[in-house]
Parts: sequence; structure tokens; C-alpha cells
Amino acid sequence: MHFDYSDRSKDYQKRVSDFMDKYVYEGNETYERQHAEFGPGEGRWKVPPIIDELKDKAKAEGLWNMFHPNKKWGPGLSNADYAPIAELTGRCLIAPEVFNCAAPDTGNMEVLMQYGSPAQQEQWLEPLLEGKIRSAFLMTEPQVASSDATNIETDIRLDGDEYVINGRKWWSSGAGDPRCKIFIVMGKTDASAQRHVQQSQILVPSDAPGVKILRHLPVFGYDDAPHGHMEVELKDVRVPKENLILGEGRGFEIAQGRLGPGRIHHCMRTIGAAEVALEKMVKRILTREVFGKPIYKHSIWEQRVAEARIDIEMTRLLTLKAAWMMDTVGNKVAQGEIAMIKVAAPRVALKIIDDAIQAHGGAGVTTEFGLAKAYSGIRTLRLADGPDEVHCRAIARIEFKKYSNAV
Amino acid sequence: MHFDYSDRSKDYQKRVSDFMDKYVYEGNETYERQHAEFGPGEGRWKVPPIIDELKDKAKAEGLWNMFHPNKKWGPGLSNADYAPIAELTGRCLIAPEVFNCAAPDTGNMEVLMQYGSPAQQEQWLEPLLEGKIRSAFLMTEPQVASSDATNIETDIRLDGDEYVINGRKWWSSGAGDPRCKIFIVMGKTDASAQRHVQQSQILVPSDAPGVKILRHLPVFGYDDAPHGHMEVELKDVRVPKENLILGEGRGFEIAQGRLGPGRIHHCMRTIGAAEVALEKMVKRILTREVFGKPIYKHSIWEQRVAEARIDIEMTRLLTLKAAWMMDTVGNKVAQGEIAMIKVAAPRVALKIIDDAIQAHGGAGVTTEFGLAKAYSGIRTLRLADGPDEVHCRAIARIEFKKYSNAV
Amino acid sequence: MHFDYSDRSKDYQKRVSDFMDKYVYEGNETYERQHAEFGPGEGRWKVPPIIDELKDKAKAEGLWNMFHPNKKWGPGLSNADYAPIAELTGRCLIAPEVFNCAAPDTGNMEVLMQYGSPAQQEQWLEPLLEGKIRSAFLMTEPQVASSDATNIETDIRLDGDEYVINGRKWWSSGAGDPRCKIFIVMGKTDASAQRHVQQSQILVPSDAPGVKILRHLPVFGYDDAPHGHMEVELKDVRVPKENLILGEGRGFEIAQGRLGPGRIHHCMRTIGAAEVALEKMVKRILTREVFGKPIYKHSIWEQRVAEARIDIEMTRLLTLKAAWMMDTVGNKVAQGEIAMIKVAAPRVALKIIDDAIQAHGGAGVTTEFGLAKAYSGIRTLRLADGPDEVHCRAIARIEFKKYSNAV
Amino acid sequence: MHFDYSDRSKDYQKRVSDFMDKYVYEGNETYERQHAEFGPGEGRWKVPPIIDELKDKAKAEGLWNMFHPNKKWGPGLSNADYAPIAELTGRCLIAPEVFNCAAPDTGNMEVLMQYGSPAQQEQWLEPLLEGKIRSAFLMTEPQVASSDATNIETDIRLDGDEYVINGRKWWSSGAGDPRCKIFIVMGKTDASAQRHVQQSQILVPSDAPGVKILRHLPVFGYDDAPHGHMEVELKDVRVPKENLILGEGRGFEIAQGRLGPGRIHHCMRTIGAAEVALEKMVKRILTREVFGKPIYKHSIWEQRVAEARIDIEMTRLLTLKAAWMMDTVGNKVAQGEIAMIKVAAPRVALKIIDDAIQAHGGAGVTTEFGLAKAYSGIRTLRLADGPDEVHCRAIARIEFKKYSNAV
Repeated sequence: MHFDYSDRSKDYQKRVSDFMDKYVYEGNETYERQHAEFGPGEGRWKVPPIIDELKDKAKAEGLWNMFHPNKKWGPGLSNADYAPIAELTGRCLIAPEVFNCAAPDTGNMEVLMQYGSPAQQEQWLEPLLEGKIRSAFLMTEPQVASSDATNIETDIRLDGDEYVINGRKWWSSGAGDPRCKIFIVMGKTDASAQRHVQQSQILVPSDAPGVKILRHLPVFGYDDAPHGHMEVELKDVRVPKENLILGEGRGFEIAQGRLGPGRIHHCMRTIGAAEVALEKMVKRILTREVFGKPIYKHSIWEQRVAEARIDIEMTRLLTLKAAWMMDTVGNKVAQGEIAMIKVAAPRVALKIIDDAIQAHGGAGVTTEFGLAKAYSGIRTLRLADGPDEVHCRAIARIEFKKYSNAV
Repeated sequence: MHFDYSDRSKDYQKRVSDFMDKYVYEGNETYERQHAEFGPGEGRWKVPPIIDELKDKAKAEGLWNMFHPNKKWGPGLSNADYAPIAELTGRCLIAPEVFNCAAPDTGNMEVLMQYGSPAQQEQWLEPLLEGKIRSAFLMTEPQVASSDATNIETDIRLDGDEYVINGRKWWSSGAGDPRCKIFIVMGKTDASAQRHVQQSQILVPSDAPGVKILRHLPVFGYDDAPHGHMEVELKDVRVPKENLILGEGRGFEIAQGRLGPGRIHHCMRTIGAAEVALEKMVKRILTREVFGKPIYKHSIWEQRVAEARIDIEMTRLLTLKAAWMMDTVGNKVAQGEIAMIKVAAPRVALKIIDDAIQAHGGAGVTTEFGLAKAYSGIRTLRLADGPDEVHCRAIARIEFKKYSNAV
Repeated sequence: MHFDYSDRSKDYQKRVSDFMDKYVYEGNETYERQHAEFGPGEGRWKVPPIIDELKDKAKAEGLWNMFHPNKKWGPGLSNADYAPIAELTGRCLIAPEVFNCAAPDTGNMEVLMQYGSPAQQEQWLEPLLEGKIRSAFLMTEPQVASSDATNIETDIRLDGDEYVINGRKWWSSGAGDPRCKIFIVMGKTDASAQRHVQQSQILVPSDAPGVKILRHLPVFGYDDAPHGHMEVELKDVRVPKENLILGEGRGFEIAQGRLGPGRIHHCMRTIGAAEVALEKMVKRILTREVFGKPIYKHSIWEQRVAEARIDIEMTRLLTLKAAWMMDTVGNKVAQGEIAMIKVAAPRVALKIIDDAIQAHGGAGVTTEFGLAKAYSGIRTLRLADGPDEVHCRAIARIEFKKYSNAV
Repeated sequence: MHFDYSDRSKDYQKRVSDFMDKYVYEGNETYERQHAEFGPGEGRWKVPPIIDELKDKAKAEGLWNMFHPNKKWGPGLSNADYAPIAELTGRCLIAPEVFNCAAPDTGNMEVLMQYGSPAQQEQWLEPLLEGKIRSAFLMTEPQVASSDATNIETDIRLDGDEYVINGRKWWSSGAGDPRCKIFIVMGKTDASAQRHVQQSQILVPSDAPGVKILRHLPVFGYDDAPHGHMEVELKDVRVPKENLILGEGRGFEIAQGRLGPGRIHHCMRTIGAAEVALEKMVKRILTREVFGKPIYKHSIWEQRVAEARIDIEMTRLLTLKAAWMMDTVGNKVAQGEIAMIKVAAPRVALKIIDDAIQAHGGAGVTTEFGLAKAYSGIRTLRLADGPDEVHCRAIARIEFKKYSNAV
């Protein structure tokens, strides 16, 4: 047992950190300024040009596609080695994309790497790996409790050489981006099959006839443009039957394979966001005064800062352990730990961000410190990819099975 | 001791409730549609015409200015009688304004009623009472921890027959509204005086030269247009010396008088919002299914619903008691209870709204159910008019003084 | 709506409070000394003589049997009038018995008053009202989850003119007291009947052949001697059939009638205990110093003290409202509120006592301040008369039924 | 970074675990039976003979003095290697002593190993290492807030060749044991020196004239006999000046050296206790039924079990990291992490034990499952060796110093 990052990871951490200090934090401000200049309304759904400049720089420095352990697709960092880099990118909103390590592309690339046919890989994976296009994952549906994925109702029906897709999806994150060219869609190819083999996943170009973006879904008032979380109608959308991934009825299997790394990434980025919030909280209370002394000398803040530090340390360790387990014993054995971090990281980060908001007074709930924005994004993580309750259920059932065969 | 509302209150509750069922809920939808039609950007800072229609109707039915106990200014409901009406108006965003019972006008009218000169009343109170203009209260400043109000730095200096005002304020709620004609500004007339007599309050027309709205402050991602929370620059603003309220050095005294009723109103509206969130949560879990049974049969939701109900009941009772104390023994004796509800009501409501968000999945964090919006608004209440910590300090000091003269 | 106690209640409060100041607090010390002098082991199950002296005094002053609203049995204070008196008696462990207002006697008297035959009343109610004997209520069983009372298995079978009772009970509180002469036993007279009419309640003298006290059950190490919480075996215990209360199959009906007032009493006493803990906490932090200043100046304690005060005020109000509802609309309509206070009062008190323990350091977990003892007793209330989860379920179902007939 | 225990640790874990399965759990029952047979009162302060039998067995198998990393004193397991063994011993109350790894002996041995003179080592360390005697650490005082150790007032004064000690101590754990032969006493040799060099530590034989055990301090209602937490009077106690450890004014330095490993041990044992509580909770809810289904199917318990599992995993990892840091970078660099686990482990364990109590109903608060006993013991850990607040303060100050030199 030892708790030190590998030399390779430390090298990448340093390079990413330096790159962020040099380009990304400042680039984020440029990004916001450029985006604001597009104006309100439709203008918001354009991509600030700075992003491509930064991507080119990152690619040139080899800080690109670091998210996947297989050397075929990038530097080939293990999950444990990549985790602290994901944490770093969690400190700044545009950072994940700059390094081509942003959701949902990483998950979609993962699917195409693992399950895509050579033709699918050539057509969609390659431009994604090069950062030329972006993608979305269409799973959640407005009409059913999608936390139980067997509820999903989108219909995928074979008709000659094509699949015809009908359904309505929402929370299709990234589908607002004009560069988003491909959707992976989850739906039922056989509603009469056994519960866990009804579903399939299929590739749908975003410009296929019958695809209609109905609206964007704000998150706590934020449109997250130009990325966006979209509601999408799929009406008699036809795609070649070769667009089906892996085979009919294998949708759950693909979903499982997709989720493990994605959660490590999300959780580590969440920890990065929590660190930023803690840092802001501390800096604030060091510099403001009430009732005759600096706020940091009011001991209620000692307690909050200490709890923040404790919770961050613990959650990071559990996330790193889950990453290490994925590297050593695989996603399946690590599923309990993966579920745990999915619950723990947002819970911990929300508490810290909320305290940081409180430390900032009115400045905390508005724009300048980014805290309200961070809160809203991370609050969503308690629902995305399954709500807490579903993960807690899975964790509990592992415990129950230790002592009973009947569960 | 008895816990029943008075007949008079019940009569008003019924009339307000009926009026809301008949006009206001539907009017709120019209409001949002009309507001959306103004388009993004500057368009958002116009007032949807429906609001005046509804105000006229409410005024015609005598459901107008119900917030003040003195019959001189309206029907003259006691605080205890008005509290459940405030709760009702808390169920719908536009309701308080429809009945001319909206913050910050009510607080500003309170100040003018209590402390305004006849001339000040004629010029500003009357149009406010008629709902012809709106107002703002400029207290918080971006550069200092305003939770300790002695930190406030805006300078108010007598120069001949005029006061000259210099300072920067923010969280000037309502100053975005084109109908907002008058500001009450807090600042120092004598920075060398004893701490609690340095401050004064003065009336500043919103169109006075030197007044400049710098920007609006979103709450989470909501602009709250056309109301808005504005950052305002006051640069060499000159007003007649008659605009000073009550006298130099009496700013704190005025602030105290203003706050009691305002907190009852806010807290009761917050309870109304919590009731709405609970109602939505219950309806949602009654109708969705996961893992083979309706969500309401999953006992985690029994616990959450029960805790919500318990917390609402308790907080409402404490708020009503505070209202009753204001009516019977006055704001000063009730100050502990007023501080308590200021802490308790947002805390309770945020927990319930957060659970309701969780019950709604993705729908909870976006627009349709208004839950994320409610959360963001009420989160702000933990900071507005003093953060929790300041009120807890005040409450604790009352306890300390029971056993020690040295506190 | 008004929040003042009635004059009659205030008069009794003053008399009880004066009596406690004059006799009971000091009597409690005498009680502990006398009890300690009996020595360890069997000696602990004797009753210190001071208790009868105090009871005689209280009876002489008319501070006796104040718990019941019917004038037939005492002064006839309404539940709302008695509630603050129960709070006062919650400040001192022996106080409830001194005024003949102690559980489980009050509940058992309630049963006999409401449902007892004249003969049952003469034989058992009268000596209880006079404080000459004590009683126990035998409901919970070790072998089943008694939180679902339909699980209870004790068998009550008619055999000629007698009922024969077999079963094992535990948490038979008060059965350790040598003065405990009568048990009310819950069990099944007809296990094949519909779920809610299987149970009956029957009177069993504590010295009936076949009754065997197996052991006492410590609560967090406290034996609560000589009261005690006993495990009791009932083996072929025979009682005359006239000992059945009300009739076969009416056990649940009796249990319902018994519970309402009992919960008011318990909750108000719990609030009294919370007040005492808050008072001790404040006194402690006012007098000790760390890191160069008194502990009360460390703001973490401001927050804790304030939250304690807020929570006490809110819980007291809800308990008083439940009492008032019992008085005005009856136990059945008040059942939601009664369930709510059962959950809220122990939760609130435990938090406060735990903070008070923390304020006292090592002194908090040991004997001198009585805090650990208070904690353990009140922790038990989260289980006694149904665990929190069962009450939350009941509260939630009331909410569910507002919007669905299917619940 | 890897998260697997070393082979050596795994080997010891297996041997300890097997030994416990074979002897210790059963031995614990024997222990309790033998202890009960001594009867109440004075009888409780005798040591059940089984303990020596078990110690002899453990020593024979080389499972002895595993707590110290230096091979001079035992097998020489690193802190990281020993941590999981401490966790195992935390599953059973007598286990730590069986392996001669029990507090406060381990801490006292640590002091003697690091700072003791050869003569002190020969006289006191050797019999401790052999398990022939036991010891106590006398630090906390009833009259002052000992959480700020500079408050300690016991006087240690040189008089000729002897030190004369006067003071009153409490929470002298283990001083009730008839085998306890030596105390390490903290006190002031120079109250006029700078705050952190006033204190010294000195060896005082438990039978020295002037040492008087005043009473034992129950924890909640547990006497923890024959170990016991004693209040001790030191009145003109004289010891040779050679009994001073390290030198005058070095008490704090010694205290620092003592605390690191002790906290790892305590925290890991606490995690063991939390695991046991979780196991009991799960087993209970798997086997009991309410409202027509097993309790584990009520989803509130899924949430509680999942949170317990998450919290245990996270806390264990942080404790292991702290242990690993002590091994690699030393106690001083690890002081933040050591403080963090001191706060986190009891907090986490208390929550789990409390939920386990709730799962067990009445059985949870009494003797059979040991849960109430575990709760009371671990509640004490939030105070022992400094209350949470002090550790949080230390953790917070590390954060503050990252951004300010003025703290």
C-alpha cells in the first residue's frame, strides 16, 4: 500500500497544471468574453473561437486524449494515473474540452473504442479523437422515471436495411453545440424480451431527418450554452442497420462498460471543483472582517473549513481507489466503489460549495466567483447517470448479499 | 392559547386564495409568456402588461396593501392575521406584487409610514400605496462584509441645502424595474460618530444625476428580470436635505423598525414555497414507478415527506408566534423570535425543495416545476438581511445574557 | 390565535415550579443518596423513602394527578394547560412521580378511566390515583419487530371463567419497582381474526402465578432502578375473565386511546430536558476558557446555542398545538400532529444534549451533569411506542392521501 | 499508488483474525461471565482470569506488541501494516489487551521507548512489554478546560532530590485495574515559563503515598470495570527526580510524540467497531419483518446501509493514508491527516452505530448486541485527546496558512 502518484502521473499533472496556469484560466476569461459578445438569444449557441486555439496548443503538447488507458488512443494513462489530471481539469469549466477529455465525448469514444465496428470507428471515433466533432448520449426520457433504465421507451425498429427510431429524449447534454455531429441513442429493439435485453444502442447523426431539437433545458437558470442540455424529438429517424452498436439487446451491456471511467472522471473533476470552492472560501474569510475581527477567527469557519478538508481528502482517496480497482481488477469488481463515489463526491462538493457561498455573502450566489454555477452543475450530478437512491440501493444490496442468498 | 386563525384572517385567506385560483396562477403563465415574447437581452427589462390588469382586479376587490396593521394604509390586518396571507402569496412568484404586498416596497412603505415626513409621504408613499411606482432599498455594498452593517461605507455629506451621496451598492433588488422611481439609501453621515449613530437613510430618486445602474446580478443563473438585483453607482448624487429620513445618525433605528414585519412576510412566503415543493414532491412520487412499484412505496420517501411536513408545521408555528408577539408586545421584545424564523424558514424550505428536486429527477433542476428557481431564490434569503451566522449570534447572545451580565 | 398560556395553566405552572424549587430538586439529591446507600446488586431495587414524603407534600398542595383533563380524576387541566407542567416535570428525573404524573401509570390510568369496568376501576384505578401502587404496560416482545404491533404473539385464551396467558414481554418499564402491582398486557385472543381485531388487553396482577421477571434491561448501562425495564415471562398465567378490558379484539382501539396524551406528556418532558441541557451548555461555555478567551466567544457555540433555542421553540409550539387539537378536535383528528411530535421532540433534544455533552468535555459523558443519562433515556424514546420510521410512515401517508385515493 | 496491504500485513491479519475466531470472541463471553460472577460493587474491580490465558496464547503465537514499528520491541510492523490489525482488534472489546496492544499502555510504552532513560525503561517498559503490569496516563483535569492543554494546573516542584506533585486528575483510564502500577503524569514544572514549555511529564507509581483514587467515572452508565476511568488525587506525592521524563518543560514535546500512533490505533479500532455495527444492522434487517415485508426491503434502510458502507470505506482510506504518511514522512508532516481521522472516525462510527441501534429496536439500547456500549465508548472519543473542535481548529489553520502568513 502506498499513496503516492506514479512518476508518470506526476509528470502529466505538472504539465497539465502548468498549461492551465499559462493558458487555460486566462482562456476561460477570454471564452466568457467572446461568448458574451455573441449577444443573447441565438447568439449564445455559437462556440467562442478561443477554444480551438487552446485545443491546438494542448494537442501540440501531447496533453490530449489522456482519459483512456489504452495507448492506441492517446498517452495511455491508467485510470489511477489520469484521475488527478481529471481533478485538475475540474478546476476550470473549459479545461476538460481543451484537453479533449470532456463528457460526454469521452464516454461516447469509450463505447466506440470498446464496441464500435471498424467502420463506426473510422466514421465517428476518429474525428472525435481529433477533437473535430462533438457528440451526445441520448438516454433519459421525460415521460418515465429513467433512474430505472428498464423504463426507457424509445422505439428502435428494423425495417429492411434500416432502423427506424421514434422517441423523445431529454438531458441530451452537448446536443446544443453546433459541432455536435453524432448521437448515441438508447432504446428498445424488443420490448417483449427479458427486461435486461430489450435495449440497444445505435448511432444517429445529429442532422438525420426526423431529429429535432425541441428546446434547451436550463440548469438553475444557466443555459450552459453552447453546450446545452437539449430535449430532442426522434420521429421516424432512419439510419443504416450498420449503425447499431454491438448487436440487438446489448444496450445495457454497453451502458455498463461506458459508466465506470465516466464516473471516475466526473468525481475527480467534482473534487477539483470542491478544492476550488474551499480555496475561495478560505481566501474570502481571510480578508473580510465582521464584529471587530477577521471572519476566519470566528470559529464556526474553522469547523467548516476543517470539515471541507476532511471530506475532500476522504472522497479523493475513495475515488482513487475505485480508479485503481478498475485498473487492476476491472469495472465489474469495482462496481460497488464506483457507485460509492457517485454518491459521495457530489454530496461532499455541494456541502463545501454551499459553505463557500455563505462565506461570500451576496457575491456567492451571483456570477463573479462561479460558486452558484458550480453548485448547480454538481447538483445535477446527484441525478445524472442515476440518482443517489439508485446507487445507494446497489451498494446496499452488495452488503445484503454478504449475509443472505435470498436478496 | 389557541391555534386557530381569526375569522377576519380566514375571510381574507379565502378571498386571496379564491382570487389566486381564479386569476393569479393563470396570470403567472401569461406573465411568463409575455415576458418571453419581449425576447432576450434588453427586452427582459420590460414589465409584462398582465401585471397591471391583475393589480387593478385585486385593488377592486379590496385585496390590496394587506401587509400593514394600521387601518390608515389598508384593511389593517394584524401581523398574525396577515401571515397566512403572505404564505398564500408565497405559492406563486407574481402574487405578492399583484396584491401590492411585495418586497422591497412593503419595507420601504413601512419606513415612510413610520418615519417619513408628510412631504416625503405625499411624494413617495402615496404612489407606492397605489401601486403606481416601485422602489428599492440600497444597503449592501460589494467592498465590505455588510453582514456587519457598521461596515457600510457610502458617504452622505451635507453641502448647503443638499446632501451629496457617494458610494457603490449592490443587491439593490427591484432597481431593474422601469417603474422603480425611488431608492432608500443607507450610508454614513458621520463616520467619526459612535458606531451605531454613524448611519443615516436618505431618499434618492432613481433618475437623480449620478445614479448609474452598473449591471444586474444574476441569482444562480436567473436574472429575475424585470425586477433584478442591481449594482448601483452613486457618484456625487445630490438630493435636497429634506430627503433625509428622520434625522442624521438614525439609520440603524430605521433599519430596525423596517425589519420585523419584512421577516414575517419573507418567512411566511418561504413556507408557502415549501408547501408547494412538498405538494409537487408528493404528486411526483405518487405517479412514477421504479423497480416495480410506485416511488412513494419506497420508504426513503416516507421519511422525506414526513420530515418535510414536520418541519413546515414547526416553522409556520414559530413564524406565527413571532407575528403575534409583534402585534402584542412589539418588535423589540420579539427580536429573538424574529431572528429565529429568519434562520429556520430558509433552512427548512431549502431542504424540502432539494428533496423535491431529487424526486423530479432532471425535471427538478430545470424550468418546468420551478423548483430550481425556488431553491436559488430562497438560498439567497440565507444571506439577505444578514446571513444566518449573524442571526444565530444574536439569538445566542440572548441566551448568554440570561446567565451572565458580562456578555 | 394567541400563544399565551391560560391563567389557570400559569397558576399551576407557578405552583409546580415553586414546589420543585422548594422540594424536588433537593429531593432528587436525597433520592440519589438514599438509593446509593442501599448498595449495589439487589439493593438497587428498593425505593428511597424520600419519594413518599414528596408525594404526600404534592398531594397536600393539590399538585396531584394533573395529567388528566377530566375533573373526575384531578384538577382537570386540559392537555394544553397541562403540557407546560409536563415540561417542568421533565427538568428533574423524580418530578413526574412526585406529582403522580409518571409514565406508565398515567397511560394505564387513562386506559382504566376510559375503558375499565367499575370493578376494574375500583380495584386498580383508585390505588393508582392515590399513588399507592404502580403499574406496567406489557406490549413489546423480544421475538418480533413490535414496531408493527400486529406482529405481537402473546397468547390470551379463554378457558372456562379464566383467561390463560402465555408469552414473553420485554421493555416492561416500571415492572422492577416493588410497588408495581398491576400489568396491562397486550396479546392475541384470536390470531385468526382480521389483523386489527386479533389483539386484546387484559389486567394481570404482578404477583399472579406464572409471572416471572427474568431480568432487567439496562439502557446504555443504566439500570434505571428501582423503576427498571424488565423482561417478563408469562407462563400459563390465569386471571378471571373479568380482567379483560373492554372486550376481545379491542386491544388496538385501547392502544390508540392510550397513546395521544402519553405522547404529549413525553414530548413536553423531553422539551424540559432539552431546556435543561441548553441551560447547562450555556453556563458551561460562559465559565470555561480555551485559547485565550471564554468558550462562548468561539462562534461555533453561538451557532449551536442558537440552533438549540430555535429547535426548542419550534418543537414546543408543535407539541402545544397537538395538545390543543386533542382538547378541541380530539385524538383522531390530531393523529398527524401527535406522530410529528413523537418524531421531532427526541430528535431535537438528542442534538441539544449531544452538543451539551460536547461543551462539558469529559464531564459530559459521565455522571455529574446528568447529560449522558438524559441522552440515553431520550434515545430510547426514538424507539418506544413505535420507532421514528413508523411514525414518519403514518405522517407521509396522510400527505399521500391528500392527492391519491389509492394509498 | 496502490491500495493493497503488504504481504506481511496480510499474513498478520490472517493470523490475528484466525486467533480471534478461535479464542477471542468466545473468550470475550467467558470474560463477561467471569466478571459477572465477581458480583456487583467492589467485585467489579477484579480481573477475570481468562484474560491471562488468552494473553499467554497470543504471546506464544507471536501476536504480541504488534503496535510498534521498531523491531526492538516486537515484530516491527509499520503503522500502515499494523492499522488493519488494529481494525480487527476493534471488533471485540477484550482483543486489544489480549495482544498487548491496548490503550493507554501502547501510548505509555511509546513514551518510554522514545523518551525514557534506560533505568525508566528497565523498571517500567519491560514489564509493560511483557504484559505483566498496566499503566495510566494522567493528563485531563476536572477544574479546567483541558482541551487547551496549556490550562493544565497540576504542580510538579523539585524539592531536593525529589519532585513533589500536587493536583487532581480525572479520566485516568485504566487506573481502576489492580494491575495498573505506573502513571505518567502531566503537570507544570514552571508556570512562569513560556506557554509551551511550562509542562513536564513524570512517572508516578500508582502506590506512591499521596496518590488516592477518589472514584470511578462511568461513561454513560458503564463503569468499564475493571479498567475504569478514575478521578485521582495527587497530594504531596514525592518521586525521585529521576522519574522525570526527558527533562523539565518538555511535556508538550512528549505529548506530541505520543499522540500520532495512538490516533491511528484508536481510529482503526473505531472502524472495526463500525464494521461490526454495520454487520449487525444488516443481519437484523434481513431477518425481521414489518408491514408485510422484510425490513431490508424498506428503502430507508438501503440508504442507511449504503451511507454506512461509503463512510467506512472513506474513513478507513484516510486512516491508512495517515498511517502511511507517519511511516514515510513522519508524524509532524502527517499532523493534518492525524487530526482529520481523529474527527472523522468517531463521527462516522457514531452515525452507523446509531442507525444500527435503530434497526434493533429496544435490543439496540440495551446489552445484548453491545451497540449502546459501543456508542458510549466512541462518543467519548470525540472528547478524549482533544475535542473535535480543537482538531478542526488545527486542520483549518493549516488551510489558512496556505494563503496567509498572518495566521
